[in-house]
Amino acid sequence: MRVELLTVGDELLLGDTVNGNAAWLGRRLADHGVEVTRSVVVGDDLEVIVAAVEAALGRADAVITTGGLGPTSDDLTRDALAAAAGVPLVRDPELEARLRARTARAGRELRPMALRMADVPKGAGLLANSAGSAPGLRVELPGGVVYALPGVPFEMHTIMDEVVLPELARTAGLPAVARRTLRTARLWESVVATRLAEVEAMDGVRLAYLPGPAEVRIRITVAGPDAAGRLAGVEARVRDLLGDAVYGAEDETLDRVVHRLLAERGATVAAAESLTGGLLGAELTEMPGSSATFAGGMVTYATEAKHRLLGVPAELLAAHGAVHPDVAAAMAAGVRDALGATYGLAVTGVAGPEPQDGRPVGTVYAAVAGPGDSRTVAGPRLPVPGPGRETRGVIRRMTVVHALELLRRVLLGLDAGEESEEAQADREDRD
Amino acid sequence: MRVELLTVGDELLLGDTVNGNAAWLGRRLADHGVEVTRSVVVGDDLEVIVAAVEAALGRADAVITTGGLGPTSDDLTRDALAAAAGVPLVRDPELEARLRARTARAGRELRPMALRMADVPKGAGLLANSAGSAPGLRVELPGGVVYALPGVPFEMHTIMDEVVLPELARTAGLPAVARRTLRTARLWESVVATRLAEVEAMDGVRLAYLPGPAEVRIRITVAGPDAAGRLAGVEARVRDLLGDAVYGAEDETLDRVVHRLLAERGATVAAAESLTGGLLGAELTEMPGSSATFAGGMVTYATEAKHRLLGVPAELLAAHGAVHPDVAAAMAAGVRDALGATYGLAVTGVAGPEPQDGRPVGTVYAAVAGPGDSRTVAGPRLPVPGPGRETRGVIRRMTVVHALELLRRVLLGLDAGEESEEAQADREDRD
Repeated sequence: MRVELLTVGDELLLGDTVNGNAAWLGRRLADHGVEVTRSVVVGDDLEVIVAAVEAALGRADAVITTGGLGPTSDDLTRDALAAAAGVPLVRDPELEARLRARTARAGRELRPMALRMADVPKGAGLLANSAGSAPGLRVELPGGVVYALPGVPFEMHTIMDEVVLPELARTAGLPAVARRTLRTARLWESVVATRLAEVEAMDGVRLAYLPGPAEVRIRITVAGPDAAGRLAGVEARVRDLLGDAVYGAEDETLDRVVHRLLAERGATVAAAESLTGGLLGAELTEMPGSSATFAGGMVTYATEAKHRLLGVPAELLAAHGAVHPDVAAAMAAGVRDALGATYGLAVTGVAGPEPQDGRPVGTVYAAVAGPGDSRTVAGPRLPVPGPGRETRGVIRRMTVVHALELLRRVLLGLDAGEESEEAQADREDRD
Repeated sequence: MRVELLTVGDELLLGDTVNGNAAWLGRRLADHGVEVTRSVVVGDDLEVIVAAVEAALGRADAVITTGGLGPTSDDLTRDALAAAAGVPLVRDPELEARLRARTARAGRELRPMALRMADVPKGAGLLANSAGSAPGLRVELPGGVVYALPGVPFEMHTIMDEVVLPELARTAGLPAVARRTLRTARLWESVVATRLAEVEAMDGVRLAYLPGPAEVRIRITVAGPDAAGRLAGVEARVRDLLGDAVYGAEDETLDRVVHRLLAERGATVAAAESLTGGLLGAELTEMPGSSATFAGGMVTYATEAKHRLLGVPAELLAAHGAVHPDVAAAMAAGVRDALGATYGLAVTGVAGPEPQDGRPVGTVYAAVAGPGDSRTVAGPRLPVPGPGRETRGVIRRMTVVHALELLRRVLLGLDAGEESEEAQADREDRD
């Protein structure tokens, strides 16, 4: 089955909006084994939309449009589809009643123009929109079928997942699909891909790697009969191959995992930071309700503050400078005590662009101080990204991930996660 | 002049990459008064690319392609343009020498496949690429001209700005264009647009509003004879109309402005945060060299820590809770003294999703403690963004902007920037 995408809107041609809808649709359809063969953007021009729909159906079996279904005069997708089908627009009484009820509930009057959203090409099917006011449309044309979806992303996603994909699965015999995303920290994308080669070779399994600073998400898609059942087996195999580097699944971010582990233990954490300047605390407070397990933090950017506020021994700072594993350990213990937390988590390092205390850019140490003892990890020197990237920002972000992963491993009683040989070799290849 | 965009690459159809290149090109061309009438994405398929180029030139005067100029076998734009022109690919000796010299300098051997990047359709013009190894191509076809650019964004931007736009300006008589971006904090986009209505009505002037949380950037584009000279006058008028809400221009972010103002005064700042959890410190350390003016920070997420670490009077916290202008003021003075900084900057508030101490979500107060006195601002209740957005994240980000803007105003001796009547009215309209 071949599908073309048609995105409608002047704002896309002008570049005021980036075409995220087309990317989302492409990904979703690819996961279901549907090939998107072309993606076209046109402006708010009736004749151009009609011609684009007809040309697309000359090549593909179905066209999915987004945009142009709103209430204003430049929303022309309805009119274009009616013209392409050679039918008039008719007002749908049920849609009109729903629009009137919705505005009445909000205590407003319905603007006459908004009634345009109740107009549909005669004979078109309505695609229920549980996320908004205007439904999508299904219009059968001589060359194939057009699914017209709104441009608002979460409405478009909802109609696609709830209506269009199930319908395509029925009518075009698309295979059943099951999906799962696993999250790993501190593994290189190339290491993940090498370890998962055997999974990638499995029939009906598609792996996508979504890398971020010091993290890789792995999206597993299984298509075919008993997709859901097979997915469970594939996920188990992926977890076997990646081991304890898998920290979570779906939208369970590393900070959420750490909060959960702390909550399960009735524990709290406090953060001491230098190069990250507050990013670690910001990450630990991103989640609603984080105050139950986050006690607070100190940003000791100046070396002197590490001594005065966190009690890092002056001799240690004098001997090694601020970027040293023992300094990280002392910071962790200091912030734990200063904020009365169960755990202290600390980072110190060089974000660049200049070296500091003789340490090169990307040297980062993290440490965790537990309830009684203090456990430190001598972080590997982080790889410095190439030119054209925001080196400093990436190092700071990687540092946050390394620190949270260290805390996770300590909470779970895992080894501290030294750099593996294969990761080291991979890093050296890139250097 | 009508231009179509053609983006080549399977990764775009699969949605693994979002089409930022098309958006950038659309914006750039619109600034120069060139209308992009269609934007098409096709996969790495020779015949499809040829057909798409020919169809585009049947409608437009010029086509700009991106992607498909790399060294691998699925990079097919060169071959497609040769096929469309009915000419062979020929190896350009100068390009070959340049590629060999580049790999030799890096101490590597040139892979035979990389030599593909030295092949050009016979008769094609080369578009110099000062940012990378492969040039762009200019190919004249019966229907018009094709500019083929690489898909790597910064290379594409460079060739476009240095070669293609100047050439279009000469050959198609595009007007000269001059651009300037001004940055404002704490003004609503609609307020900015209302104040600038007279500028928007000026001939040859285009304004684009680029809103972010609590910030609006205004991109001014002036086209026509003496564009650069006119731009200076337009910029002055915009600054008149917006007053001291304009904090900087181009890439001069608010944190950079604050650092500059502090450095000019030989001063430092320390940050005390609650709801932002460290974001304020993170913003103040984003810039390289920020340690000269940033002394450090405290994240007192728990109410008790505000008393113990920052010396906020217990009676004050007991009487008003943690979200109160006097608490912000005490936090600012406390962190200034704890870190030995010239200024203390503090925020306290409710990021949500639940109210706190009886204050609704979005209640935020910021305060600055100066060298001698303490100056506070009772922040307006921030507008809570609608459903489907990340409310908590937006409130935290807006809080950072409000705090930095307050410090800027104090450093410059401006009034503290209470919410204006028009902004209030606008906010109530949205509520």
